[in-house]
Amino acid sequence: MKPYVLGIDIGGTNTVFGIVDARGNVIASSSIKTGKHADFNDYLDELYSEASHLIEANEATDKIQGIGIGAPNANYYTGEINNAANLPWKDVKLAQLVSEKFGIPVAVTNDANAAALGEMTYGAARGLKDFIMITLGTGVGSGIVINGQVVYGHDGLAGELGHLIIKRNNGRLCGCGRTGCLEAYCSATGVARSAREFLEIRTEPSILRNLPIEEITSKDVYDAAIQGDQIAKDIFNYTGTLLGEAMADMTVFSSPEAFILFGGLAKSGELLLRPMREAMDRTMLSAFKGKPKIILSELKEADAAVLGASALGWEAKPLQTPAAQ
Amino acid sequence: MKPYVLGIDIGGTNTVFGIVDARGNVIASSSIKTGKHADFNDYLDELYSEASHLIEANEATDKIQGIGIGAPNANYYTGEINNAANLPWKDVKLAQLVSEKFGIPVAVTNDANAAALGEMTYGAARGLKDFIMITLGTGVGSGIVINGQVVYGHDGLAGELGHLIIKRNNGRLCGCGRTGCLEAYCSATGVARSAREFLEIRTEPSILRNLPIEEITSKDVYDAAIQGDQIAKDIFNYTGTLLGEAMADMTVFSSPEAFILFGGLAKSGELLLRPMREAMDRTMLSAFKGKPKIILSELKEADAAVLGASALGWEAKPLQTPAAQ
Repeated sequence: MKPYVLGIDIGGTNTVFGIVDARGNVIASSSIKTGKHADFNDYLDELYSEASHLIEANEATDKIQGIGIGAPNANYYTGEINNAANLPWKDVKLAQLVSEKFGIPVAVTNDANAAALGEMTYGAARGLKDFIMITLGTGVGSGIVINGQVVYGHDGLAGELGHLIIKRNNGRLCGCGRTGCLEAYCSATGVARSAREFLEIRTEPSILRNLPIEEITSKDVYDAAIQGDQIAKDIFNYTGTLLGEAMADMTVFSSPEAFILFGGLAKSGELLLRPMREAMDRTMLSAFKGKPKIILSELKEADAAVLGASALGWEAKPLQTPAAQ
Repeated sequence: MKPYVLGIDIGGTNTVFGIVDARGNVIASSSIKTGKHADFNDYLDELYSEASHLIEANEATDKIQGIGIGAPNANYYTGEINNAANLPWKDVKLAQLVSEKFGIPVAVTNDANAAALGEMTYGAARGLKDFIMITLGTGVGSGIVINGQVVYGHDGLAGELGHLIIKRNNGRLCGCGRTGCLEAYCSATGVARSAREFLEIRTEPSILRNLPIEEITSKDVYDAAIQGDQIAKDIFNYTGTLLGEAMADMTVFSSPEAFILFGGLAKSGELLLRPMREAMDRTMLSAFKGKPKIILSELKEADAAVLGASALGWEAKPLQTPAAQ
């Protein structure tokens, strides 16, 4: 077996790629700007050129077994990106084009599924067969693993738990166009929105009132909570409670051994985790009470996206052509 | 391969069992009263005696490859029933004891998972790899199939979608002790509860007002709706809407190709299905809009429980001993 895979994480701003070995060491990595080229072929030319330099410089030519790509809206079955709102190209036959360019098998999935594969292959979920990865970043993403397999569903797009409806009435507008989604509350953006709501509705003094209200970030709320600011602490209680209630609902679906949390908000520690655990316990169906573990990601944030994408590279198959299920 | 399996459905009132062939024909079936014996060993003696007669009478001795059992709270991994509220025996090592008695491999699961296996093996889900079976009976049960496998989860108890919380505030008390569960609204019992609520809150005339309010059943509501009774029709709209909203949430989890509906309420036809489809479409995340099919069970209600249980018999393994995952 060839010893390396190439992991590529295509984000709205940067495309990060790295050479990864079977133990999850990132041998070398680099990046290009995703948005520089309006034409995907120009983007692919630059990606190929930069990745080739990296591969040659690390004497990895002919040692790359597969390429794994994590990208928004990337479909594992078809190998395509469709309707990606944050990328310059709306629809791309990603797996096919990258595979033809590099002459190496390619597999693709969305970034949260890639993160789940990364945790299972190299991180906190090693040895787990049933878990749910939740990424708490700008949005809320998820990757669901059942019987050791990522759940792609019938169409390759399963595992969008950020879009569970947690407020049926009077819920916040979500980026997806609907209202009341988990993502509208329990993402970094959601925490900032909660701050604006709390500061308008409540009257107590708060450090957060020193900031222009439209510019408050989840980091500002975290910093204020650490300093003991009551409104900031209550915002984390609110966020954690909603997340824990949603996780109790997720549990009746697949009864995971663990939830793995990743992303900026997950690093808020007990501010978020205590109310989350309490809400999970309080609202959990009795058969599952106390069962699912809460585990924080073990992957370094700088490497995690590349590692997650690379994990998919190990299962990329030669001559993979886009094929619907 | 031996040509038959024995399917056993253990319900709160009756235990139905039947000899089933590989095409899903019920060769012969019979039943005993579940509640007659407070001691499980006495129950097992009677079950063995009656099933042996049935097997001998149908010249099936030595032709039974496996026994599949569907029972409330039965755990696929451990082979046990635990905390079964509606059975005379609270905790039983079901698979082990039945297997020792009959000398035939036994596998067990809960009734809704058995129903899903039955549909996949003999019914409307043949050829489907990703679907969700929803049983709309006295309660709401579910069996989830992903990649052609029933989802048992880490502890063998996954797939309790009747206990998704669909009303976070002011929800009805559910039999599970929590409030706002799907089952408290979209079961036959839930429809009867809705009738009592609607009749109290609304003032229009209704055929249902001719009945003692505490005795109204979902069948009464159905009959009234068929006669054009507006309150009865609105109860079905309410029920279907809540069910459709919940199904949209289920879809973001596993993106099933289809939902298979089974049980008394599922036979309400368009009274239930129209508002259910409308709510699904209206609240579905755009990526999944219009994708999941709605399919009604193809199994005869009288045979379905035995067929579902029997489907598990084909995968029962010799010398199966209770073993945690």
